[in-house]
Amino acid sequence: MTGVERLSLNQATTRHLTIEAAVRHCAKAGLRGIGLWRDRVDEVGPERAARLVREAGLTVTSLCRGGFLTAADATDRAAAIADNRRAIEQAAQVGAPVLALVCGGVPDGSRDLRGARAMVADGIAELADDAARHGVKLAIEPLHPMFCADRSVVSTVSQALDMAERISDHVGLMLDAYHVWWDPDLEASIARAGRRIFGFQLSDWVLPLPADVLLGRGHIGDGCIDFRGLDRAVRAAGYDGWTEVEIFNEAVWAAPADQTLRTIVARYRQYVTGP
Amino acid sequence: MTGVERLSLNQATTRHLTIEAAVRHCAKAGLRGIGLWRDRVDEVGPERAARLVREAGLTVTSLCRGGFLTAADATDRAAAIADNRRAIEQAAQVGAPVLALVCGGVPDGSRDLRGARAMVADGIAELADDAARHGVKLAIEPLHPMFCADRSVVSTVSQALDMAERISDHVGLMLDAYHVWWDPDLEASIARAGRRIFGFQLSDWVLPLPADVLLGRGHIGDGCIDFRGLDRAVRAAGYDGWTEVEIFNEAVWAAPADQTLRTIVARYRQYVTGP
Repeated sequence: MTGVERLSLNQATTRHLTIEAAVRHCAKAGLRGIGLWRDRVDEVGPERAARLVREAGLTVTSLCRGGFLTAADATDRAAAIADNRRAIEQAAQVGAPVLALVCGGVPDGSRDLRGARAMVADGIAELADDAARHGVKLAIEPLHPMFCADRSVVSTVSQALDMAERISDHVGLMLDAYHVWWDPDLEASIARAGRRIFGFQLSDWVLPLPADVLLGRGHIGDGCIDFRGLDRAVRAAGYDGWTEVEIFNEAVWAAPADQTLRTIVARYRQYVTGP
Repeated sequence: MTGVERLSLNQATTRHLTIEAAVRHCAKAGLRGIGLWRDRVDEVGPERAARLVREAGLTVTSLCRGGFLTAADATDRAAAIADNRRAIEQAAQVGAPVLALVCGGVPDGSRDLRGARAMVADGIAELADDAARHGVKLAIEPLHPMFCADRSVVSTVSQALDMAERISDHVGLMLDAYHVWWDPDLEASIARAGRRIFGFQLSDWVLPLPADVLLGRGHIGDGCIDFRGLDRAVRAAGYDGWTEVEIFNEAVWAAPADQTLRTIVARYRQYVTGP
């Protein structure tokens, strides 16, 4: 037992590495899973991406990402649906069990939050059969409410579950600690989510927020999130899948990948699964 | 009827003005209410502050603010309680019906969000009798979850209500559109809140967020919040009090106060109460 059997690197954490380099670093650090991003898969093609991961002895734990289903007009909406179909296909090609969905924000100039949410639900419903046919689960990722206007009108676990339950058993959620840690209903929502938790991602809430709030995440342990309690709740709900570390942070990207991977493993043992 | 009978200027919007200057601008713009801040009251003393407001024909609609009840140790905690008692006394002295509470974040170095929330509830419970004796209502202000770590572990209307209901009828909430607009449960929570809505504040969610996210609010209509729908929900819940415009924004602060007040009135008519 290495203690990291279920730990996976989300590729966004080592943004400047190709898939080939990323899996090499994972293998060296003892990690057995990697969450891929579509732009990196596109670089080498899905077949080669899958082979690179497999040959390094790793498993693809998710593909990021589909979504952005809140379009201002019908043309943009059709384009979004088509792009999500390609993402589902690519997920199947690389062997990703799960496609993460960042649902999309309020369209420019609109004040119709309810309408935007309906577009998300309708869009996912439209994609659900396609995803099932490909054996890919759709994981709605509730994003922190500070991204509600521009990235995701789905902000809470409970809201994502309401949506998923109305659509299909193939739709569930990607639970990212950074986005949901503040939620007063989190514990109850996770218990309710049960087997609809399709993925689990970690990074820490660190202050101050940077100028681009998208890039403010920290290594586990650098902030104020209770990862141990969260991990316990997620496991108690029945989730037995991978835990990805996904950090968007310029300083982490600038660090040597060896060091980043060492930190991920050490912090995971110290703050998540350790004593 | 001017259409702005219930419109009030929260003093934070004209941060660089003394109370004397602010009430002069309010009167000129046809506003009849002002929400005061403690630092500006301290400058002239509560008696003179009350007289300045009264002589301008205005009403004090709230006092900002108490709270910050999540202390790292007993000494800091006692200091926080004492400061809140002074705030309650000052609210009574200036004739503010309501003291807004920004509850406080997660103490430095802590990961105990639940513990921080308990400290808030205990602190408010400790203050409730004092507030009732002074005839001042305590308004818990749920802050946007992006402030959960550093300013308020109370993030949603429903959470604030749970807390208020357990304490006293003298405890309710300050509903600030900027902080709660994203909440998927907002409509239901507002209906549930009913007469526990003690105050209502407006500013718009504008992108991109500035480097200091505290200062990213916009004039009504500059962003994506559906103020008309929100106002309707709040009135339907039974709230018949003031609506304050409270904007933290360097550009608004740098603008001439005349212009700011004109914009507030025009936007309120256009986006909140108008046809």
